[in-house]
Amino acid sequence: MATPSQSQRPSPERVFGVLNAFHSSAALKTAIELGIFTTIAEGADRANDIAQRVNAAERGVRILCDYLTIHGFLTKTEDRYALTQESAIFLNRHSPAYMGTLADFLASEGHKRDFDALTASVRKGGTAVAQGDNTKPNDELWVSFARTMAPLTTVSAGFIVDLAGAREGKACKVLDIAAGHGMFGINIAKQNPNAQITAVDWAPVLAVAKENAAAAGVANRVASLPGSVFEGDLGEGYDIVLLTNIFHHFDMATAKS
Amino acid sequence: MATPSQSQRPSPERVFGVLNAFHSSAALKTAIELGIFTTIAEGADRANDIAQRVNAAERGVRILCDYLTIHGFLTKTEDRYALTQESAIFLNRHSPAYMGTLADFLASEGHKRDFDALTASVRKGGTAVAQGDNTKPNDELWVSFARTMAPLTTVSAGFIVDLAGAREGKACKVLDIAAGHGMFGINIAKQNPNAQITAVDWAPVLAVAKENAAAAGVANRVASLPGSVFEGDLGEGYDIVLLTNIFHHFDMATAKS
Repeated sequence: MATPSQSQRPSPERVFGVLNAFHSSAALKTAIELGIFTTIAEGADRANDIAQRVNAAERGVRILCDYLTIHGFLTKTEDRYALTQESAIFLNRHSPAYMGTLADFLASEGHKRDFDALTASVRKGGTAVAQGDNTKPNDELWVSFARTMAPLTTVSAGFIVDLAGAREGKACKVLDIAAGHGMFGINIAKQNPNAQITAVDWAPVLAVAKENAAAAGVANRVASLPGSVFEGDLGEGYDIVLLTNIFHHFDMATAKS
Repeated sequence: MATPSQSQRPSPERVFGVLNAFHSSAALKTAIELGIFTTIAEGADRANDIAQRVNAAERGVRILCDYLTIHGFLTKTEDRYALTQESAIFLNRHSPAYMGTLADFLASEGHKRDFDALTASVRKGGTAVAQGDNTKPNDELWVSFARTMAPLTTVSAGFIVDLAGAREGKACKVLDIAAGHGMFGINIAKQNPNAQITAVDWAPVLAVAKENAAAAGVANRVASLPGSVFEGDLGEGYDIVLLTNIFHHFDMATAKS
């Protein structure tokens, strides 16, 4: 979102820009879906060439790439597009820091529907859409979260690994509540060969965490405990309890309980 | 939309922010719909007080106002909210420069639906939604445009009035094609008592232009010519033809014809 106008003279530009800001979410999501950034990283740089490789119309690709150029996600010199440093790092599928998967979750149809009902939700003081209770399983949503949002954990996982003293290598039982992608526990297990992780989440979500644990080579030390954190028996004797993906979904009273 | 990161170190923040930018469109539209800015201008400054006056839940209003504070549309001191200079000028319904009406058109359900189909539209190279032909009447959309977008004409209308030499007061026939709100022709008529305006647009849209002409005291010099600019007889002998609201809706070939 744009910062407040810097100039002394008040301008209608920011009100106009923010009312239209949903264009930019859609444009970036479309570019990610079509693989525009990845295709440019692979060497295509003219609209017709990019269009052919992503199986889209040249006119559509040219207009989209010009929009992305204006908004600083591409550069354009004559008729050739190039990635910015940011796009090369975060939006090229071949980059280890690729964030494109986030678009599926953040700008999902469900989230857009939620914000379409915002006025009713503010009137009510809580969600005005049907599916607003995070104590119930909602597999599709949280599997999507687990599949797409792992790239966002890179920085915070390092912080948690340090906080957990993982590099000291002491035997340690970790309970990862609402584990999702499981990346916080998995990173502890990677750094500490004596850590045992128990991941709690809905069963279809834990399947994603197991895949990630296997890819990290720590599947044998990441156990699954499917079900609701409010209802199941979570076991005991844990040295560390991770509560990374959960409190912000509940009101104060539920979170405290 | 945020400008590219200023720091040397590339950050994922802007990708995250742009994928979520549709939140800000929804939040600003909701605040306008509820009349939050106007209510604060009228003297309410605490969440519970604002909530009572706009008939919404205190919790919803507090969360919304905190979001608007973070994004620079309000300020907050302890538990009291205040307007920024920009919000006081452009978002308070009592201000002569009020832009709140724009939200209905810019962030309408129809426009949001169009952007939901953006990937398909880029693939196709043109709109992928049913209603994409601006040569056909589409009364609801253009009446909404005429009713809501007039505030955006303030600066450009002044420019057109100068360009048309309106202040010289010479007798002058003006054809205003796709007049919409009619504000460009109306402003010429206001400045030049010898100007005769003919406004072309769909009939229900011209009803709005007539209202605006009456409010400006120039109704007797603004004639209506309902119908499509591509089909009807537009008359002749015009000194000035205004083409302000039209070319950007068509491809180059149609626009030239």
